[in-house]
Amino acid sequence: MKRTIAILTGGGDCPGLNAVIRAVVRSAVLQHDWRVIGIEDGFDGLVGTPRWRELDPAAVRGILPRGGTILGTSNRGNPLAYPVTKDGESRLVDVSDEVVENFHALGADALIAVGGDGTLKIARTLQDKGMPMVGIPKTIDNDLRCTDVTFGYNTAVGVVTEALDRLHTTAESHHRVMVVEVMGRDAGWIALESGLAGSADVILLPEIPFQLDAVFGSIQRRREHGSRFSIIVVSEGAFPAEGQKVVQLSAEANLGVERLGGIGQFVAGEISQQLGIETRVVVLGHVQRGGTPSPFDRILGSRFGIRAVDLIAAEKYGRMVALRGRQVVDVEISDAVDSLNLVDPDGELAGAAEALGICLGR
Amino acid sequence: MKRTIAILTGGGDCPGLNAVIRAVVRSAVLQHDWRVIGIEDGFDGLVGTPRWRELDPAAVRGILPRGGTILGTSNRGNPLAYPVTKDGESRLVDVSDEVVENFHALGADALIAVGGDGTLKIARTLQDKGMPMVGIPKTIDNDLRCTDVTFGYNTAVGVVTEALDRLHTTAESHHRVMVVEVMGRDAGWIALESGLAGSADVILLPEIPFQLDAVFGSIQRRREHGSRFSIIVVSEGAFPAEGQKVVQLSAEANLGVERLGGIGQFVAGEISQQLGIETRVVVLGHVQRGGTPSPFDRILGSRFGIRAVDLIAAEKYGRMVALRGRQVVDVEISDAVDSLNLVDPDGELAGAAEALGICLGR
Amino acid sequence: MKRTIAILTGGGDCPGLNAVIRAVVRSAVLQHDWRVIGIEDGFDGLVGTPRWRELDPAAVRGILPRGGTILGTSNRGNPLAYPVTKDGESRLVDVSDEVVENFHALGADALIAVGGDGTLKIARTLQDKGMPMVGIPKTIDNDLRCTDVTFGYNTAVGVVTEALDRLHTTAESHHRVMVVEVMGRDAGWIALESGLAGSADVILLPEIPFQLDAVFGSIQRRREHGSRFSIIVVSEGAFPAEGQKVVQLSAEANLGVERLGGIGQFVAGEISQQLGIETRVVVLGHVQRGGTPSPFDRILGSRFGIRAVDLIAAEKYGRMVALRGRQVVDVEISDAVDSLNLVDPDGELAGAAEALGICLGR
Amino acid sequence: MKRTIAILTGGGDCPGLNAVIRAVVRSAVLQHDWRVIGIEDGFDGLVGTPRWRELDPAAVRGILPRGGTILGTSNRGNPLAYPVTKDGESRLVDVSDEVVENFHALGADALIAVGGDGTLKIARTLQDKGMPMVGIPKTIDNDLRCTDVTFGYNTAVGVVTEALDRLHTTAESHHRVMVVEVMGRDAGWIALESGLAGSADVILLPEIPFQLDAVFGSIQRRREHGSRFSIIVVSEGAFPAEGQKVVQLSAEANLGVERLGGIGQFVAGEISQQLGIETRVVVLGHVQRGGTPSPFDRILGSRFGIRAVDLIAAEKYGRMVALRGRQVVDVEISDAVDSLNLVDPDGELAGAAEALGICLGR
Repeated sequence: MKRTIAILTGGGDCPGLNAVIRAVVRSAVLQHDWRVIGIEDGFDGLVGTPRWRELDPAAVRGILPRGGTILGTSNRGNPLAYPVTKDGESRLVDVSDEVVENFHALGADALIAVGGDGTLKIARTLQDKGMPMVGIPKTIDNDLRCTDVTFGYNTAVGVVTEALDRLHTTAESHHRVMVVEVMGRDAGWIALESGLAGSADVILLPEIPFQLDAVFGSIQRRREHGSRFSIIVVSEGAFPAEGQKVVQLSAEANLGVERLGGIGQFVAGEISQQLGIETRVVVLGHVQRGGTPSPFDRILGSRFGIRAVDLIAAEKYGRMVALRGRQVVDVEISDAVDSLNLVDPDGELAGAAEALGICLGR
Repeated sequence: MKRTIAILTGGGDCPGLNAVIRAVVRSAVLQHDWRVIGIEDGFDGLVGTPRWRELDPAAVRGILPRGGTILGTSNRGNPLAYPVTKDGESRLVDVSDEVVENFHALGADALIAVGGDGTLKIARTLQDKGMPMVGIPKTIDNDLRCTDVTFGYNTAVGVVTEALDRLHTTAESHHRVMVVEVMGRDAGWIALESGLAGSADVILLPEIPFQLDAVFGSIQRRREHGSRFSIIVVSEGAFPAEGQKVVQLSAEANLGVERLGGIGQFVAGEISQQLGIETRVVVLGHVQRGGTPSPFDRILGSRFGIRAVDLIAAEKYGRMVALRGRQVVDVEISDAVDSLNLVDPDGELAGAAEALGICLGR
Repeated sequence: MKRTIAILTGGGDCPGLNAVIRAVVRSAVLQHDWRVIGIEDGFDGLVGTPRWRELDPAAVRGILPRGGTILGTSNRGNPLAYPVTKDGESRLVDVSDEVVENFHALGADALIAVGGDGTLKIARTLQDKGMPMVGIPKTIDNDLRCTDVTFGYNTAVGVVTEALDRLHTTAESHHRVMVVEVMGRDAGWIALESGLAGSADVILLPEIPFQLDAVFGSIQRRREHGSRFSIIVVSEGAFPAEGQKVVQLSAEANLGVERLGGIGQFVAGEISQQLGIETRVVVLGHVQRGGTPSPFDRILGSRFGIRAVDLIAAEKYGRMVALRGRQVVDVEISDAVDSLNLVDPDGELAGAAEALGICLGR
Repeated sequence: MKRTIAILTGGGDCPGLNAVIRAVVRSAVLQHDWRVIGIEDGFDGLVGTPRWRELDPAAVRGILPRGGTILGTSNRGNPLAYPVTKDGESRLVDVSDEVVENFHALGADALIAVGGDGTLKIARTLQDKGMPMVGIPKTIDNDLRCTDVTFGYNTAVGVVTEALDRLHTTAESHHRVMVVEVMGRDAGWIALESGLAGSADVILLPEIPFQLDAVFGSIQRRREHGSRFSIIVVSEGAFPAEGQKVVQLSAEANLGVERLGGIGQFVAGEISQQLGIETRVVVLGHVQRGGTPSPFDRILGSRFGIRAVDLIAAEKYGRMVALRGRQVVDVEISDAVDSLNLVDPDGELAGAAEALGICLGR
């Protein structure tokens, strides 16, 4: 039977999305002779007048080394709570029935949804409403459960490590403390792994509320041993443990960290003021999620795409592809959402950092 | 005659400094059998108890591909206005006589000072006081006169261009405007060249006070042609022309741009509020000046170092090495300082940007 | 008890070796206050007059991002069959007793041997002779058993993928077939993974003796679909299945492939002569094993080094560290040697390549 | 007047070609509202049935960072001596009249030919036949006269330098001599500049026939100073000075260097046999000319494209654009061809290499 399958990419962009799309198309067309259509801008493309395009091998030629997603994405497109403006008022409305309707009107047999926690939850709901769904996990922060790792994360660690390599020479030449704020709202994987690879002296994670005194002690020990610079990597979601003496906050009373320009700025301010050492902040921001995917991410994205097509061929719906050791497997979408994959403060990787003399702020 | 020559690196660090140091050492030792000593932390190393080290070929082995400077640098070390604390009070004192004295006490015959406008002015003064000086220009912003270009700038343009390549895929996937703030306090070379290389849609320079309406028009024309994203590169020293309707400033009354977190933040705020388009800011910061130098900068640094040694051999003091076309030449230090090399708003390069459809904010 | 431990690196160099050395030193010194000595040039450094140096944290500063090994290595140093020249004659002699003696004379309590199949076999023998050994696996080809992967391999795949990205544009502009010969004498991992990541059209592995007709068919199908170029990745250990019509071999009769300049040259020659299509060969060679390690390899090398120190602390000798899924574990050295980790011709990864339309020469 | 202009790319591919094409299209369309057509596969596209395509801004979107040429190229397409097969016999025929005819039939007012010495000579002849031509120089070897440098060369030097950085760690770990053969048939620019940037110990150029004894001496002096490895960069066009004792040639009598697998192989063989030091060869090959262009090449290509359009607007035909210092200028095509831009053996750059202690084989 000749099938029609659809694919969309949701949430923040991530190196490897195009590898997924390409693999889905090539494997569906070359192995099964199916038709593939690409939904544009995530689930948004299935609300109102559907926005989609035909995807054949020619349409995905040359996209493997390209970052981003040729299908576009949307952070706002949650069909379960969709912003609708009526009579000048904006409300959040459940438009999932419209999505299901539009999907069926396209004549599609199954939908591959590539996305993070949010996208996968929507996929689970739509599956419950009778739409045959296959999920592909995507999280640049590596905070999704049920899969050892997802594509994009490896590239992000590479970008941050390269930045740390660069900053080392500047910090060293100027005898400065350099604070580098990286992605990771809930999970500190990027900070921890890039800090290990980039020879950080201090790494602060959301999983370990930090003590400023521990950070100060690490910087000062280095100075006593003749290293007048330090590199501090901070997850954007890191935060200080309670009950510490904090200079900046006392100065501006009830202002939160947010007001002060991010946690990196906060840490730099405390070091600068409490230790009197010249300190600079770099917020790496969006460069971490763009650009050409690493080979690892290209391969993992491709394998995930192929496996998703295999699941459709076997009519195993409601499943999400995942990596376990060296194997690509599949799990229930439900098992992957609702809780996160966090750094274990007592695990081997955190322990490795401390064995190397890196301060984790405790 | 066997001579002793000294070298120091002043001001902000810059890829290629180690290439200079290595070339000075190798050429002085291998060609002339001279002794070379390295002054640490810029002119600071000649104030108080001198801090210096012997530099022979073994001491500079393997440093060619490394960023920063093995000699350290100092932004504060202006011997003409040196911060001295006495009786709890801090004053700026002229310690140049102490520098001259310390220099002679080291038994050195000449000093090679590698640095920017500030360092070269000091060198000129010391030359006037009888210290045999040779200057090597260093400016990552490319704003020094008398030389076509200096080392470090090429590497910085490379770092920014790579970041723009990365941000393109994110901007495109999310239909966003992305504002990228880059180095360039007085001169917009980095913004202009990396914007050209990285396919920016708008480039804002210190040399051309910008009109927000021109920027808005450029973004909107792109949207009308189906490009829902735009990349805007802004020099840190860019600023709006007077007399414009500005949303943010009116909202927070007398707050300057500085207060709002940099010019990139300001431009992004105006686009977001006046056009209602999702906009993100990336401030590239210190990653632009660190890391391994590009081949161009390694070679130029090496050639400058060799030429400086040649000048000492010829006892041509008070001179600065420079690049003119394909030739390394030398000029009076005096001719290189006091005024800057700025982008010509009516020159070929600015014209090239506009010929390609790039908006320069006018 | 204050211990003295020794470390050496054997076999071909591999990005990540310095990460291992650094982690061993830092973890042994900072966690246990042990003394670490580095044996130079692999087991060679324990034959004759021992060659070694003290390794403290200062000695390993800054080496994490550097390729190669600061300790040097030797391909020849097999103490079980050591080349000794006496009376003008060269013989292979077992000098393992001398190695054991020299090791004890150094006052070392344990030796960490970082190396591949050869090095680990020697380690097993020395362990049997009463030398307390811990092995750390190293193979750029990824052909060692008992560990999911080792450091160096990820970097090599990155180098090859980058080269394939480069060659794509040349092949496409010139409508050429480009044959790229990569490392992999027994195992085709590098060819397979970099071919997947670099969008190869044909991948030839040692594990699948290839049919030229399959290769020709793939090239011609692409031309029929308008793609006038093809990229072919060939492991150095790939070879043709028997019984095929071969133009070159018939031309030069009994000459083997070796004589013709490598298997890449052979494949290119057959395509060029049998299909009449302009074909070029690139032999990537030693660039694949040099240069700064990828973040993955820096981290894995560091974790391996730390685990090796942990094994010594626990006096678990004769063991080799390994990666299993996300965990670093340890196994018997004996279990890791004597047979290789090869690509499974019927496994998921080979299947993924074919699902994408890549020809594996069958 | 609304004009139609055509563009083609000839000769070997070169990073920056797409930047030229994009700049020509954008500047012609946005500034002048002209029509642009792209001739496919160099002059081949004007022989027989013309092969061309419309080029508007949408057609050149996203090509700036891509290597190669979207128009394709051909090494064979010399219309002055075009291979034509008739009655089973192949002859070289002048088909330039057919090219002129086809060009006029396309309704084009002028042709921009981007290419090297060969392409520019053809352009000169066609200009003499009344076809309005503008030339843009392209040579990855940097051997064209009348322009300080062309696009592509900077990228090639970057690729080679990165490879040398990689090979350094391998050579150092194994105490080997590493011979790296790079592009440069007539001119040694790539070898010289990448050798300077990549810290080569010996650089051999076509412009300086080399003495093996000088090479041997350099390697041995390094060994005496404790550096047991050496990096030798050899232009593919380098050759030994006459009258030397050569081991390989005497062994295989009248075989030329070609037979022995290239000059790199020859040099390595002599070192290995005459000095008895382990030596390896790497032939970098086509990776040098592919891949994303450096920022410098993207900008220079863009400026050249814009200037070519300006020349057409001014009806200045028979001219070639060029770089002089920081300025883009134009010269007679005739002045640029017939002789080459070679490294001056007595110039500053060769002198800089020797001042650093690099052996140039003399």
